Amino acid sequence: MTKIDVCFVPELTQFYQIEDKIVVVADIFRATTSIVTALALGVKSIIPVATIEECETYQAKGFMAAGERNGLKLDHFDLGNSPYEFMDEKLKGKSIAFTTTNGTRAIDKTRTATQVLCGAFVNISFLAEYLKKAGKDVLIVCAGWKGKYSVEDSLFAGALVDMLGFDSDCDASLSCQTMYRHVKHDISGFLANSSHARRLTRKEIARDVDLCLTFDLYQVIPVLTGSELMSLKVEQAIWQKH
Amino acid sequence: MTKIDVCFVPELTQFYQIEDKIVVVADIFRATTSIVTALALGVKSIIPVATIEECETYQAKGFMAAGERNGLKLDHFDLGNSPYEFMDEKLKGKSIAFTTTNGTRAIDKTRTATQVLCGAFVNISFLAEYLKKAGKDVLIVCAGWKGKYSVEDSLFAGALVDMLGFDSDCDASLSCQTMYRHVKHDISGFLANSSHARRLTRKEIARDVDLCLTFDLYQVIPVLTGSELMSLKVEQAIWQKH
Repeated sequence: MTKIDVCFVPELTQFYQIEDKIVVVADIFRATTSIVTALALGVKSIIPVATIEECETYQAKGFMAAGERNGLKLDHFDLGNSPYEFMDEKLKGKSIAFTTTNGTRAIDKTRTATQVLCGAFVNISFLAEYLKKAGKDVLIVCAGWKGKYSVEDSLFAGALVDMLGFDSDCDASLSCQTMYRHVKHDISGFLANSSHARRLTRKEIARDVDLCLTFDLYQVIPVLTGSELMSLKVEQAIWQKH
Repeated sequence: MTKIDVCFVPELTQFYQIEDKIVVVADIFRATTSIVTALALGVKSIIPVATIEECETYQAKGFMAAGERNGLKLDHFDLGNSPYEFMDEKLKGKSIAFTTTNGTRAIDKTRTATQVLCGAFVNISFLAEYLKKAGKDVLIVCAGWKGKYSVEDSLFAGALVDMLGFDSDCDASLSCQTMYRHVKHDISGFLANSSHARRLTRKEIARDVDLCLTFDLYQVIPVLTGSELMSLKVEQAIWQKH
């Protein structure tokens, strides 16, 4: 039976088998939510990079540059990390280099997987449908926060585990699913106590949090293709497998 | 206000501030449960060591040797890792060198704390009372399983967070507490789905699991004293602080 497992922070990926799995990276506040939003609204591709310097190199070559450090936009970049910033007609068809504190690292550490996808509440049902059809073992890698567990990422993981009904491959998926079931009727209220939500509220970007916790706004799955995240052609991807 | 945080595996302790905190190490199946049991029943001290070789060195010097690898007793050792093995009149007053897959590593990585204590369901209320009186920030370090999250350890963490009512210092404590509240009326049933419980059941040591999930059998707190875990003199420890 198809199996699912959850890795709570990118710093632990070495303890998980990644090869021959589909990896779903989740950085709910806000990187993967923003990436899904960007591709859904017509951005051609997002190039995830680990460092500010790499992002600047892309910028010098004419790409747009987006990113944050410690939740704050970088002055000389075109965009920060808010999903609302990616909702811009002018970005259609563009490729954007994107660096974030934790999300990029999660992508970087899982490049050896069969597929690396981005997940968020905003594309969760569409993603779940794809994963069911794909029939491969899944590893959800949460971005966390500087090596620490993030409750919003693992809550997303729990929701996805719940939707998929795959076999739990280890305790982390059981734990996330239990938490999700306990709080699913008031996710916002529950997360108001989380460290990251508190951090974002302080920076007056509470509307980002609301959007990041909205289910199923988009039917798009970012997939790592070479060095770029592009919109997965779902029908084609399924067809290739059978 | 006093704060509490949870680190899910010893491999992530470098991301937490340990100095000036009381660390509670939890390896519910079965190391810390066995250590509490041993001290409660009159063992003088447990010497936690990282490797089999160190344990053998102690054995050669006349100490008793206890431990397991991958859940199995080591042939030439006097004892394994089951709490029942430590319930033996002959062990009274003895010092025992003890190596386990994950528990010892958690202790090893937190030696710089103000105090390193061992926690388990079997001493949880007594431990909680002590921590309330001590009034120091607490970090619970779960032993996990080879770098992976263990649900029984984090469930213990959630129960302790719930009992203490300290401020959550990060998302991990919030998450454990939520899970604990959701399943506390049927912990055994819930954990029957955990990877470790399944592993232990397969090895026909289900009665160990029952004991490890029993609340408040003992009023003993193992505290790291030099290289040994000894029973904390609670009255004296509180008295020294004031």
